[in-house]
Amino acid sequence: MKTPVVPERGTLRPLGLDEVRLTAGHWAERQAVNAEHTIRHCLHWLEELGWIANFDKAAAGEPFERAGREFADSEVYKLAEAMAWEIGRTGDPDLEERFQALTVRVEAAQAEDGYLNTVFGGPGQRPRYSDLEWGHELYCTGHLLQAGVARLRCHGEDAFTRLCRRAADHVCEVFGPGGIERVCGHPEIEAALAEFARATGEARYLEQARRFIDRRGTRTLADGGFGRAYYQDDVPVRDAEALRGHAVRALYLASGAVDVAVGTQDGELLDAVRRQWGRTVARRTHLTGGMGSQYADEAFGADFALPPERAYAESCAGVAAVQASWRLLLATGEAPYADLIERVSWNVLSGAVDPGGRAFFYANPLHQRTADEAPPEGELSHRAAGGRRAPWFDVSCCPTNLARTFAQFAAYVATADDTGVQLHQFTPALIDTVVGGARLALSVATRYPEHGDVVVRVEANDGGERSIALRVPAWAEGARLTGPDGTAREVEPGRPAAVTAAFAPGDEIRLALPVAPRWTLPDPRIDAVRGCVAVEQGPLVLCAESVDLPGGADVAGLAVDAAVAPVERDGRVHVAARVHDRDADAWPYGPDAADGDGKPAEVPLVPFRLRATRGPASMRVWLPLA
Amino acid sequence: MKTPVVPERGTLRPLGLDEVRLTAGHWAERQAVNAEHTIRHCLHWLEELGWIANFDKAAAGEPFERAGREFADSEVYKLAEAMAWEIGRTGDPDLEERFQALTVRVEAAQAEDGYLNTVFGGPGQRPRYSDLEWGHELYCTGHLLQAGVARLRCHGEDAFTRLCRRAADHVCEVFGPGGIERVCGHPEIEAALAEFARATGEARYLEQARRFIDRRGTRTLADGGFGRAYYQDDVPVRDAEALRGHAVRALYLASGAVDVAVGTQDGELLDAVRRQWGRTVARRTHLTGGMGSQYADEAFGADFALPPERAYAESCAGVAAVQASWRLLLATGEAPYADLIERVSWNVLSGAVDPGGRAFFYANPLHQRTADEAPPEGELSHRAAGGRRAPWFDVSCCPTNLARTFAQFAAYVATADDTGVQLHQFTPALIDTVVGGARLALSVATRYPEHGDVVVRVEANDGGERSIALRVPAWAEGARLTGPDGTAREVEPGRPAAVTAAFAPGDEIRLALPVAPRWTLPDPRIDAVRGCVAVEQGPLVLCAESVDLPGGADVAGLAVDAAVAPVERDGRVHVAARVHDRDADAWPYGPDAADGDGKPAEVPLVPFRLRATRGPASMRVWLPLA
Repeated sequence: MKTPVVPERGTLRPLGLDEVRLTAGHWAERQAVNAEHTIRHCLHWLEELGWIANFDKAAAGEPFERAGREFADSEVYKLAEAMAWEIGRTGDPDLEERFQALTVRVEAAQAEDGYLNTVFGGPGQRPRYSDLEWGHELYCTGHLLQAGVARLRCHGEDAFTRLCRRAADHVCEVFGPGGIERVCGHPEIEAALAEFARATGEARYLEQARRFIDRRGTRTLADGGFGRAYYQDDVPVRDAEALRGHAVRALYLASGAVDVAVGTQDGELLDAVRRQWGRTVARRTHLTGGMGSQYADEAFGADFALPPERAYAESCAGVAAVQASWRLLLATGEAPYADLIERVSWNVLSGAVDPGGRAFFYANPLHQRTADEAPPEGELSHRAAGGRRAPWFDVSCCPTNLARTFAQFAAYVATADDTGVQLHQFTPALIDTVVGGARLALSVATRYPEHGDVVVRVEANDGGERSIALRVPAWAEGARLTGPDGTAREVEPGRPAAVTAAFAPGDEIRLALPVAPRWTLPDPRIDAVRGCVAVEQGPLVLCAESVDLPGGADVAGLAVDAAVAPVERDGRVHVAARVHDRDADAWPYGPDAADGDGKPAEVPLVPFRLRATRGPASMRVWLPLA
Repeated sequence: MKTPVVPERGTLRPLGLDEVRLTAGHWAERQAVNAEHTIRHCLHWLEELGWIANFDKAAAGEPFERAGREFADSEVYKLAEAMAWEIGRTGDPDLEERFQALTVRVEAAQAEDGYLNTVFGGPGQRPRYSDLEWGHELYCTGHLLQAGVARLRCHGEDAFTRLCRRAADHVCEVFGPGGIERVCGHPEIEAALAEFARATGEARYLEQARRFIDRRGTRTLADGGFGRAYYQDDVPVRDAEALRGHAVRALYLASGAVDVAVGTQDGELLDAVRRQWGRTVARRTHLTGGMGSQYADEAFGADFALPPERAYAESCAGVAAVQASWRLLLATGEAPYADLIERVSWNVLSGAVDPGGRAFFYANPLHQRTADEAPPEGELSHRAAGGRRAPWFDVSCCPTNLARTFAQFAAYVATADDTGVQLHQFTPALIDTVVGGARLALSVATRYPEHGDVVVRVEANDGGERSIALRVPAWAEGARLTGPDGTAREVEPGRPAAVTAAFAPGDEIRLALPVAPRWTLPDPRIDAVRGCVAVEQGPLVLCAESVDLPGGADVAGLAVDAAVAPVERDGRVHVAARVHDRDADAWPYGPDAADGDGKPAEVPLVPFRLRATRGPASMRVWLPLA
């Protein structure tokens, strides 16, 4: 099945890229841009910087000056994964040729015993596994195996998947019983081994994943300076209350833990991750769905420590949040997991790539104070610097991670079970699958999220009574579902709404979602945005940018009137505001913080994902109340 | 003169430790604890960790495994400086013996040509000055010279000051005309050379300081990952608009620039630093006077980016802010510089050391969400971790920096000029100096800041008409000054208020400062504390701690009623508040952020400097409005 996660069991069954096709709309477009531009952009940079050439040099067996950071191999693997899904989706022969060429170069660097890494173990290099804290060896192997999963499912066995098998066997050999009883500083191998077990049918890989999950939190890693919570080695996975430490690490680990829990029928472990996810979403997640709020260690902060201007909200954490939430959705069928995927997809993932697909955000703060110029073409940017998307980074994990996610995005749209199909993401699509042994084909038509109608049309139903369920997002108070017989009912937000019938081709189900722009207030415990409101429209978080303010005024002077509802006009949402021109330079604390007289203005907003696409601008999601 | 800064010229003349004695009160106590405990605590740790032994090993001339970070030498020098001032203040013979012993060990490691550093240039070490970005060599030499200044002024020429001269000559030789035309990644050498010139009368050291100031900002340093602004190498000193980058670096550089400006009569350079200071205090300074708001790079953030919970506000930045402000005060005589020194001293410096003098804060955030246990005795702490003071840090610049500052604190209390004496800090003291060739002696009696009366009594006046000026802090609306003849007048906040008379012994001047606790609001541009108020009492910033809340409730649930004035009762300030018990775990953003019914409570506050002295507690300075 052409899909990244195929659990042994669970409430919902994933559908593959051959069962769900995006036919139009935003996600189809993102997928096309990804295929045409992003994947090739990444290939270009990986060649340009010598991160692929590292494999050639390692293969030569002589000491060499290696390019890039210790995890640069993983970028090559993540791109290989993106290519594999894309080839699976479209059969692109040019990409297939490139994939095979890449395979040859990667394979050449693999040692006899399956070990594959260009940083360690070669002449003049440090010994293998001599720096588990920072070496990222198993992390890189994990991404290799994820690419192997994609290749196995989209193409079948070949030289690439065989080299992956050797690498996986090597890991089991070295880290299995009697071997090194430690873990990698960056989780990733856990989910990768569990899925590789599913893709190959080899149970020993799942068993090794379970070992890594069980070892994590037993302090087999030294404190690398950020404390052991940084790599979740402070507390065993099943004992932790919330996700903590480095956000990407925490979410990759959570994904692997769900895989192991599902694979080994470990309900306690599954419950632990569900509890951590719940706590994290309630207390450590930005409005955009962004996770991680500390620049210093790319980490979750304390509960409710969610500063908009230093919201790290790394793009890769968005990718990882989708991975973890998707696994929990498949296991439980519960709508909040799909809600989070939607929120993250629209506001973090989509906005992290520019519309042209060749520039990226690494950090996704909700407030940008300075109107920055775009970084120069062809130059490396610091990962957390600036308010504009950059072509590539010193640490460049995000572009390839986004590329593989967009390539597989159709897999997150819908699921099936024995009774029918569940639609989780609303985007024009064709869904063609088998339910209970009989074909069920649906088409989805919608202009969501700007428009709230989602129409599911039955194209074929070779079975009898079937259930078609649509997620009703938690914010969708007043949503209505109309069945093929024309009967409409209000449906409850935060859970799926289903119609069950012996559907005939041409039958339509219509979900009407209330996507008028709405004010959103923060929990009072989120100190950093007290006295502010945000505007959301469906799943979209909106923001104000200085380019839309009278005279290009700084967003620092903006205050909104929440008594006036936001209105849509000329395709844009507007809010009533006052714009203050504050330029005093004096001690900024005192008995009265005079606000001065702001000038009234009607300010248009823009979806957060489209920020920073119209030149230098200051920007804010959370708007102070006038 | 026993004082750290003796400018060639300026509006005000500093007074030495032999001219100002702290006789009682908070600062005398801090000084005593520093002498009895902190200095010896630092000596213990420097021996324990081998940071002094590095000198012995370097002297042996064999390759050795060096202890500590690349700047560990500077801790030894900063402690030597603290010891030198303390010896100068009290003549402590035990400390004198230790100082001489330390001199022998440091001197042994000095190369023939004056170079002195235990990281570079020895067998198996990297070449001298091969890593100006991160090597800290000139930074360490700068701290050595500062210790040399203290020794010269408190003791006179000896083996230590001679080794300092050799080190300074070496720097001039290597970085002078025809030498390396670059700067050190961490400013410090500039102010040190300028002061060493003053202490030795050797103009070439000032000239070398000028060269370093002129070179800074011309991009002689490579981008080390945080951008060149991190070490102020982005823009020349005289062109910059605000302090930026690493806060300690920025403030040390500003200090050196003032020294060079004053020494070379460069009004343009002086104006540049004044402008930068003004902008920084107006837009980049926390209520406590703390500077720096980014943990990632210990740096200033953007204008008005002042998050209380991630206010780095490093203790060393407090030390450096005092240094820079003191130099500007001497040059200009303007009260805002003394205001900032007061604010920083009470809220950053004093609170960074625990009352016993053996545990320290490195970062001084204004909001602590978690009630942390104290770190274990005898263990190194991460510098930015936790809500409790720690005995020592991995990067341990702050303890020795605080030690040297407390040892010299009396130097910052008062100044003189041709007309009389200016009192800048209100603390019980004896001031005995010479004005216009004739003795003028004053005693200061006060229980400030808890009580607002400051009484200056003339103990001796061998001259005729003299002017005695007292700073009126900017917050002191309604302050009154009473002259020896009993006439009282209201005096203007934010400038000195003077009485001029032919004072006779026994004459008293009384300044009555309004130290009732007061509400303080933030500039609306400081987004992170919108909707909050703070309580100040005189120069003290107060805070709420969970140990004072009913049932030890988390400060997250606190909201105050600003319509009720804070009151003092039983020696503590109380505010009317409501305490909410918020424990919901749900998506924290929505159409209504219900606040629930808080329980009314009268909550006692505590001075910020005394936070975290009563066991684990959550804490906040900025209190949400009910």
